[in-house]
Amino acid sequence: MNTKLYEIKPGNKFKLSQFESDDKSLINGDKDNAREELEALRVRLESLQELLYAESKHKLLIVLQAMDTAGKDSTIRMVFDGVNPQGVKVASFKAPTAEELAHDFLWRIHAKTPARGEIVIFNRSHYEDVLITRVNGWIDADTCKARYQQINEFEKYLVENGTTILKFYLHISKDEQKQRLIERRDTPSKQWKFNPSDLASRAQWGDYMDAYTDAISATSTRHAPWFIVPANSKLQRNLVISNVICDTLEGLKMEYPKAAEGLEKIVVA
Amino acid sequence: MNTKLYEIKPGNKFKLSQFESDDKSLINGDKDNAREELEALRVRLESLQELLYAESKHKLLIVLQAMDTAGKDSTIRMVFDGVNPQGVKVASFKAPTAEELAHDFLWRIHAKTPARGEIVIFNRSHYEDVLITRVNGWIDADTCKARYQQINEFEKYLVENGTTILKFYLHISKDEQKQRLIERRDTPSKQWKFNPSDLASRAQWGDYMDAYTDAISATSTRHAPWFIVPANSKLQRNLVISNVICDTLEGLKMEYPKAAEGLEKIVVA
Repeated sequence: MNTKLYEIKPGNKFKLSQFESDDKSLINGDKDNAREELEALRVRLESLQELLYAESKHKLLIVLQAMDTAGKDSTIRMVFDGVNPQGVKVASFKAPTAEELAHDFLWRIHAKTPARGEIVIFNRSHYEDVLITRVNGWIDADTCKARYQQINEFEKYLVENGTTILKFYLHISKDEQKQRLIERRDTPSKQWKFNPSDLASRAQWGDYMDAYTDAISATSTRHAPWFIVPANSKLQRNLVISNVICDTLEGLKMEYPKAAEGLEKIVVA
Repeated sequence: MNTKLYEIKPGNKFKLSQFESDDKSLINGDKDNAREELEALRVRLESLQELLYAESKHKLLIVLQAMDTAGKDSTIRMVFDGVNPQGVKVASFKAPTAEELAHDFLWRIHAKTPARGEIVIFNRSHYEDVLITRVNGWIDADTCKARYQQINEFEKYLVENGTTILKFYLHISKDEQKQRLIERRDTPSKQWKFNPSDLASRAQWGDYMDAYTDAISATSTRHAPWFIVPANSKLQRNLVISNVICDTLEGLKMEYPKAAEGLEKIVVA
């Protein structure tokens, strides 16, 4: 897969609304084949994660952002199915606590960044601080712009210190969200996920698309790129994300640590 | 499976050396069948974890303790394969840092205990503070005894506040460890795991068995039981642990949260 297709180039002018949320090009009409491909990627990711952990040199940070129901939870479950839970951590960022609000907005974020050998997935992230806050008018335009810059510098610092950052926007259409909300409302085992506040965000759809467009334009950098992931189809979504992660990890040219000098002569009594 | 077979009853006098590390009774000579059974348990655990997360009422803490190479890492990888990484966290306790040492021994432990809806696996735990410390003479007998009591009270407090605690000792024989260390030494992709300090612990095998016997005797309580898991066979080990976890979660009688009043009338515009 050419992962560059989904990557936003730094400084590129783009509009989220021009992106195809319904793209199924990787499935290419053959779902069984696509599922096999996904399974092969899962196996590849499993061994790449083991190598990352063994080498204990690189850190991988994956940021997931999306509108409600776009599939952040399901991506985590499906893409990381079978990957050793010991090497993968998920940090979910909800509405900040009083203590978190009393600090700068990157304080709680920094605390959850990956250590050497770790993969950390952010389920929502510091980007909420330029999205929900902006759409609701809790911050002004100057603060928002300053935060883009602060985010870029923070991410650059992380990269300089051994972190690889991949940021994914899961792109669903407003119609697809409607179907998913209705399904949630009407399926007993899913009703607990239905949050009436999701309807409030849905009513602000256009504002959110603008806020995402601006935030992604301002913060897709060479060191921490954004990918726009077509997400109406879960299979397409998982294929794109799995491919980007596997290709990126492979690009790190990791190696198992060399055996200590004289290891073969050690006697196990 | 009758999980009680592997549970240490409170106040029971027992010796670890009397336990059969080579027990393969659950495999019963049919490995293919045992693997199918394990896969069925994995699927069961996956849906129980989802329910735990949805209900968001109970907390599950799993403690893994064992001699080196007994399979703590591999248990985590194999038993929790396919369980949503979002609901499962692993806390690995290594040699304490200066900051941790400046606090009481349960300080760093408490910080990692599960929240509502979460499963947390302790890869090593507060039990190291009555094991390695005791075997090496870093604490005296009185301190060790006081700690058993403090651990029991701490765990009781956690249970009173909604935590379910399961503690597993992965029981391998000294011979089996020898084979595994040799394999580690001689297999290129495993050599990075070979730590010469493992040989020092191996030389103290008898002292460790005594320390484990005493610690488990003193801290296997009704609210936080210990299970002695035969671990020479990985399949037997995984079957015992998976069964105990699934049976315990089922015993919690969890339910999906009821839909909010009037949910069916909400219109998704």
